[in-house]
Amino acid sequence: MKKISKKTGLQPGSLVYTGRKRSTRVKINLIQYSKEHFSEKVVSEIQHCVPSGESIMVNWIDIKALSDLQTIEMAGKLFDIHPLVLEDILNLEQRPKIEFSPKSLFVVLKMLSYNDKEDKSDMEQISIVVGKNYVITFQENEDDIFDGLRKRIKNNVGYIRNLEADYLAYSLMDTIVDYYYIMLEKIGQKIEELEEQLLSNPNSELLNRIYILKRETLLLRKSVWPLREVISKLERADSQLIHSTTLPFIRDLNDHTTIVVETVESYMEMNANLLELYLTTGNNKLNEVMKILTIISTIFIPLTFIVGIYGMNFENMPETRWKWGYFIILGIMALIGAGMIWFFRRKKWL
Amino acid sequence: MKKISKKTGLQPGSLVYTGRKRSTRVKINLIQYSKEHFSEKVVSEIQHCVPSGESIMVNWIDIKALSDLQTIEMAGKLFDIHPLVLEDILNLEQRPKIEFSPKSLFVVLKMLSYNDKEDKSDMEQISIVVGKNYVITFQENEDDIFDGLRKRIKNNVGYIRNLEADYLAYSLMDTIVDYYYIMLEKIGQKIEELEEQLLSNPNSELLNRIYILKRETLLLRKSVWPLREVISKLERADSQLIHSTTLPFIRDLNDHTTIVVETVESYMEMNANLLELYLTTGNNKLNEVMKILTIISTIFIPLTFIVGIYGMNFENMPETRWKWGYFIILGIMALIGAGMIWFFRRKKWL
Amino acid sequence: MKKISKKTGLQPGSLVYTGRKRSTRVKINLIQYSKEHFSEKVVSEIQHCVPSGESIMVNWIDIKALSDLQTIEMAGKLFDIHPLVLEDILNLEQRPKIEFSPKSLFVVLKMLSYNDKEDKSDMEQISIVVGKNYVITFQENEDDIFDGLRKRIKNNVGYIRNLEADYLAYSLMDTIVDYYYIMLEKIGQKIEELEEQLLSNPNSELLNRIYILKRETLLLRKSVWPLREVISKLERADSQLIHSTTLPFIRDLNDHTTIVVETVESYMEMNANLLELYLTTGNNKLNEVMKILTIISTIFIPLTFIVGIYGMNFENMPETRWKWGYFIILGIMALIGAGMIWFFRRKKWL
Amino acid sequence: MKKISKKTGLQPGSLVYTGRKRSTRVKINLIQYSKEHFSEKVVSEIQHCVPSGESIMVNWIDIKALSDLQTIEMAGKLFDIHPLVLEDILNLEQRPKIEFSPKSLFVVLKMLSYNDKEDKSDMEQISIVVGKNYVITFQENEDDIFDGLRKRIKNNVGYIRNLEADYLAYSLMDTIVDYYYIMLEKIGQKIEELEEQLLSNPNSELLNRIYILKRETLLLRKSVWPLREVISKLERADSQLIHSTTLPFIRDLNDHTTIVVETVESYMEMNANLLELYLTTGNNKLNEVMKILTIISTIFIPLTFIVGIYGMNFENMPETRWKWGYFIILGIMALIGAGMIWFFRRKKWL
Amino acid sequence: MKKISKKTGLQPGSLVYTGRKRSTRVKINLIQYSKEHFSEKVVSEIQHCVPSGESIMVNWIDIKALSDLQTIEMAGKLFDIHPLVLEDILNLEQRPKIEFSPKSLFVVLKMLSYNDKEDKSDMEQISIVVGKNYVITFQENEDDIFDGLRKRIKNNVGYIRNLEADYLAYSLMDTIVDYYYIMLEKIGQKIEELEEQLLSNPNSELLNRIYILKRETLLLRKSVWPLREVISKLERADSQLIHSTTLPFIRDLNDHTTIVVETVESYMEMNANLLELYLTTGNNKLNEVMKILTIISTIFIPLTFIVGIYGMNFENMPETRWKWGYFIILGIMALIGAGMIWFFRRKKWL
Repeated sequence: MKKISKKTGLQPGSLVYTGRKRSTRVKINLIQYSKEHFSEKVVSEIQHCVPSGESIMVNWIDIKALSDLQTIEMAGKLFDIHPLVLEDILNLEQRPKIEFSPKSLFVVLKMLSYNDKEDKSDMEQISIVVGKNYVITFQENEDDIFDGLRKRIKNNVGYIRNLEADYLAYSLMDTIVDYYYIMLEKIGQKIEELEEQLLSNPNSELLNRIYILKRETLLLRKSVWPLREVISKLERADSQLIHSTTLPFIRDLNDHTTIVVETVESYMEMNANLLELYLTTGNNKLNEVMKILTIISTIFIPLTFIVGIYGMNFENMPETRWKWGYFIILGIMALIGAGMIWFFRRKKWL
Repeated sequence: MKKISKKTGLQPGSLVYTGRKRSTRVKINLIQYSKEHFSEKVVSEIQHCVPSGESIMVNWIDIKALSDLQTIEMAGKLFDIHPLVLEDILNLEQRPKIEFSPKSLFVVLKMLSYNDKEDKSDMEQISIVVGKNYVITFQENEDDIFDGLRKRIKNNVGYIRNLEADYLAYSLMDTIVDYYYIMLEKIGQKIEELEEQLLSNPNSELLNRIYILKRETLLLRKSVWPLREVISKLERADSQLIHSTTLPFIRDLNDHTTIVVETVESYMEMNANLLELYLTTGNNKLNEVMKILTIISTIFIPLTFIVGIYGMNFENMPETRWKWGYFIILGIMALIGAGMIWFFRRKKWL
Repeated sequence: MKKISKKTGLQPGSLVYTGRKRSTRVKINLIQYSKEHFSEKVVSEIQHCVPSGESIMVNWIDIKALSDLQTIEMAGKLFDIHPLVLEDILNLEQRPKIEFSPKSLFVVLKMLSYNDKEDKSDMEQISIVVGKNYVITFQENEDDIFDGLRKRIKNNVGYIRNLEADYLAYSLMDTIVDYYYIMLEKIGQKIEELEEQLLSNPNSELLNRIYILKRETLLLRKSVWPLREVISKLERADSQLIHSTTLPFIRDLNDHTTIVVETVESYMEMNANLLELYLTTGNNKLNEVMKILTIISTIFIPLTFIVGIYGMNFENMPETRWKWGYFIILGIMALIGAGMIWFFRRKKWL
Repeated sequence: MKKISKKTGLQPGSLVYTGRKRSTRVKINLIQYSKEHFSEKVVSEIQHCVPSGESIMVNWIDIKALSDLQTIEMAGKLFDIHPLVLEDILNLEQRPKIEFSPKSLFVVLKMLSYNDKEDKSDMEQISIVVGKNYVITFQENEDDIFDGLRKRIKNNVGYIRNLEADYLAYSLMDTIVDYYYIMLEKIGQKIEELEEQLLSNPNSELLNRIYILKRETLLLRKSVWPLREVISKLERADSQLIHSTTLPFIRDLNDHTTIVVETVESYMEMNANLLELYLTTGNNKLNEVMKILTIISTIFIPLTFIVGIYGMNFENMPETRWKWGYFIILGIMALIGAGMIWFFRRKKWL
Repeated sequence: MKKISKKTGLQPGSLVYTGRKRSTRVKINLIQYSKEHFSEKVVSEIQHCVPSGESIMVNWIDIKALSDLQTIEMAGKLFDIHPLVLEDILNLEQRPKIEFSPKSLFVVLKMLSYNDKEDKSDMEQISIVVGKNYVITFQENEDDIFDGLRKRIKNNVGYIRNLEADYLAYSLMDTIVDYYYIMLEKIGQKIEELEEQLLSNPNSELLNRIYILKRETLLLRKSVWPLREVISKLERADSQLIHSTTLPFIRDLNDHTTIVVETVESYMEMNANLLELYLTTGNNKLNEVMKILTIISTIFIPLTFIVGIYGMNFENMPETRWKWGYFIILGIMALIGAGMIWFFRRKKWL
């Protein structure tokens, strides 16, 4: 939430980049393809990317590193993007959303990827503008998750070269949702590990891990619900930009998103169960500890009292002068101890 | 969730079998029947199963063990199944769903059966494609739960031979839901057992069993809610494939599914109650243990102090030289002990 | 849930009686009435009960003890009842439901009555088939709760003799809902009793009672929600069988059912509160116990250490040879004890 | 719930008064007013209150103490009130509800007033029947909360004398909702008091107060939700009885009711927070107590063991014969005690 | 809730100011602007602010400090504001709401600003009346958060000078929602701080802070949900006052409000997690304390018993006369102690 308050008091539609990395220049990558044709090039000026209206090529304009506000503003003018949409593209705290205009479609999503080195998830915002024969993607960082998709376009794998810009947009979203699955797998593995450890060897260090896991799932849930909203609005959309051939794919994507949402929800419950298990295990341990303390105390405190009696220095203590007094007392104490143990057995404490 | 990430980055509609068992060949079993006629045979090639459009026979094509991707793909071509549907058939992590196309109906469900030997539930995915005069079932494993249904067809029991493919599809789903009932019974029994043990003889081993039961019910719930969604979409469907004679049966099935969902929900609550009971019982035990410890300590600690006093080695301790000193002190201590017991009685601790 | 699995694998519409009591023969009681006329008789064969279509008499055919499957099947044929409805009548684990067909109306409800002897509730299933000029009731047991209603018909009390079969059906349901009120009263009384005991004299035996009460309320809730569903469907029904004069009564019944549902829900919350109160009271008790233990230990453990010092057998211990050594030590210990008590007072533990 | 079961088994529409106070006679108070005219009188017979259809005066017929069933029945006949509505008027356990008939409007509400003497809330049922030029109110008790309203009518304050019966009905409901505000204030004050005490000086007596407060809020909630339902049905009602000039007032009333509902809901959460706070404070106290016990025990138990060693009566114990043995041991014990204290400091227990 | 009960029993539409600060006079600030023109002045009488119907200037009439009821009443007459709306303006306990009339639009909102000095949030009510060419704002206090907006109007920054009164109203609401973000940031920071402290150095003082934070979030939530309701009603409104150019801005505002609501909800959950963490950490600490107590007691209590035995004064105790008796007993006790430690190691307590 920190970055968003930078914008307090500014007029609506002000372009403020709320991201951290400020490289000097945006990177623009342009892929153009049709059934027969494919080209990929790095473009220096956004002006060179505007497709002519009659072009039957699909243009994928991939803009990365968003700190160059002028280019973004120029893109807005060239592709007729509403200033508020431009503002959303630059505001990296944007909630996933979809917006329809007569000539284009605007989607903001969160990309999740799992950072194995630091054992945490990276979240990056991607904005997708879909027009008749172009798709513009705005990404925060330079590395992305779409290399597989680029290869599929280049090598003409599957339907993508035969279909239009809407299918490209779908493919982008499908890739993003696929990466949510990987996140879910990681979290699922962590839950299973924690569960196993809790049942075999619970210790207090697990509490922090459960807590962090819980928080991570909570944050995931926060981006997953609006994602689902976006996809299901897309499915029900009545936009000319989305062709009927793409619709079954979007329905399929919607199913995937539903699985993601339901899995996150069940993870939430599993996390709650983990904490419950942790607490109950802790309670059981305390009970066990208290039982041992009580058994030891209950056996020895009365016996210690008895030996205390015969440690008193009264001159007239007849028992101390009996020949077998010592052994009689030892015997009595053994009996008391045995009685106590029998009592605990009956109480099922031993 | 593990298997689904295999598919990350693949193009949509890629056929990837996510199951474990990879037998070399699919098994195809073909049952054809009409009012007068019945035949059952094992077919080697899926091509031989395609019914002619005018056939009045119902064809049940039962395909088991799905690792032979070529046959599945061929089935897709022969029966005009959308590639995304084929992908769903092979993806064993699919969420129960239903899809309508003009000529056919596609349902994915989870079959549950209780494995008595290992005392756990087996879950298997089944995909059902319903056409005008055929039903295709895709099953993961070779053994299934439909032997009773096959006998009913063979022996012409009930309505099945008089009705069409939609009624066969209904019968399959009805059998699946019936097996959910068995699962519910097993869980219900376990809950009752645990409850009885908790009330009579609670011990810490029950915690694991409650936890496992809770998890099992959670997973069951995850597959039961979409099941209900599927059946209720089927009930409200306005498809030419479903005849009005079959509709009351589907309504009945919907009722059964509602009972399953409500029972699962009430089991969820009962499980939560069990855990609560476990915790409270544990707390009560701790209280009892602490009370005993406190009673013993509170009685004997002051007495031990008194005997300690007379164990001191001061030269000038007048009481030690009194003739009845020892007995007076014993008496005083007996009084203190009795006073303590009276105090605990009044506090209702004894 | 136990009985329902008997039916697994059977064809839909199979008549299986899932009840316990298997008397040899069904009992059929026929009441016929109109404004001027009233007759009541025991009928041996269901065939004798079929009213002619033009009859203006209302026929109440009350069938009890359902183990005679042939009679049930015959009733199905005579009154044109769908096999699935017949199956529901015999399946005593049926969820309350309502079904409309052009010529008749089918309702399944649960009757609750409180068994004072065993201090528990009895649940019995009743199925009601309403036709143009007849009402058929199927009951599991021979004794029922409708004697008051029969008297009102016989003695021509209220509207019942002036109105038609739908009003009779309403009266049956109204009687059933009235008995829910009695159940609610009993549970309400139990909650109040438990509450009072928890606040005045909490003990561990109350836990079981709270738990049983919770479970009882949970089961009640499970049958109350579908009851409400049934009644509200009936209210909104657009059936020719329900006359406009009966509608305000059904609306009134709907209000009553809403009160039942809301009361059950508030009982659920009260039960949760009871458990919370129980737990907190238990915690308070533990705290008190621990405080006493701590006070006693903290006072006497240091004192016992001091007397231990002077019980040591060193040859050179100057204090032991002082004339007033013993009394000085006693005085020091008294001071320490008083200091401790002052400390506990300041901590508000005493 | 107790009173409602009196009516079990009676025919619907039976007039049974379920209230407690049975004064011999109803009190009827008749207020008639128009722009210019005002009169107030006590009427002995309900027959004298029926306004002529063309009268342009508004008649407020206020009937109190409902045990005189004949008068109620007569009112029903004179004003054409449905028997089921009459039954609801007499049944003081009625849920707040609204019912529309072509010629009149029937509302049941709960009046809450705070009884300062006994520090609890009083709940009374009021039924309002609104006709073209009359409003009938049925109240359980003789004293009510409408004196301010009567004065406003008499002294011609505000709109009331210029508007019609529907505005009078609105004014009655508005007064009732205003009294809910007072209840909310009282509960809010109690919550704040409890909170302050919990944070400054928690003690076990607060538990009962929290519990009673929780229950009170629960009961308030039970009557507040249906109240809101009633008011919002009234807002959306399309009745000829409600004039467009009154509609903004009813919308305003609806807003007030929403505030009441939301405040009750937030009180529910605050109550839950109070209990949580109570529990956590209790836990903290227990921890503190246990820490003191542990510190004392851990320091003195080993020391007591050491002094015990030198209290043994072995003949050959070299240390006891050393000249400085006693002082060496005292020194060692001082070191051990200091070490323990250092250890607790490091553990942050001291 | 305290202030609102002042109004109990008053007629609806009574003007009662429920705020605290009663300065003698309202302050009226009038800003008039169009594309070319801008003027700002302090007005003494509300009568001088009424714009002529044909004026194309936008008039922002900012009224502060509401205790001068006559001016408010006059404003009501001049701008044709319904008395109930006037009442809402003066009632500072009003719930955020929106009301449409043919000629104007009425919005009540809560302004939140964070008071850094006292480390708490200030809440102030603002009422906005939007007409064709005027916006009236009613504010409780004299200082506000709109200075940035005034500058933007004066310096002609952004769209505001080119658009009409509806855009001014939007800008006011946008500024208010921006300040909610700042509140959220503050709360988010506090949550993070508390979390860090809980994980590194938990202490009992944190409980109060968690509790206060929880309450603060609860109150924030109470004003945030109706805010969202207001904005989303505004978005869906079909009012002539809102031009199509302003609509995308309102949609954007709606998105922002959704983020606020979702963030508040996730803060609620994080707070609950914090408390859970606090409790669990406390429990862990108790367990650790108890373990240490138990270890110390369990080791030394039996040893103290043994030394007690040899402190008894029996005349016939053979061991005491053995030459190495003392050392043998010391050895035995060392073995017992070591055995205990080995036992605790195996139990993983050490």
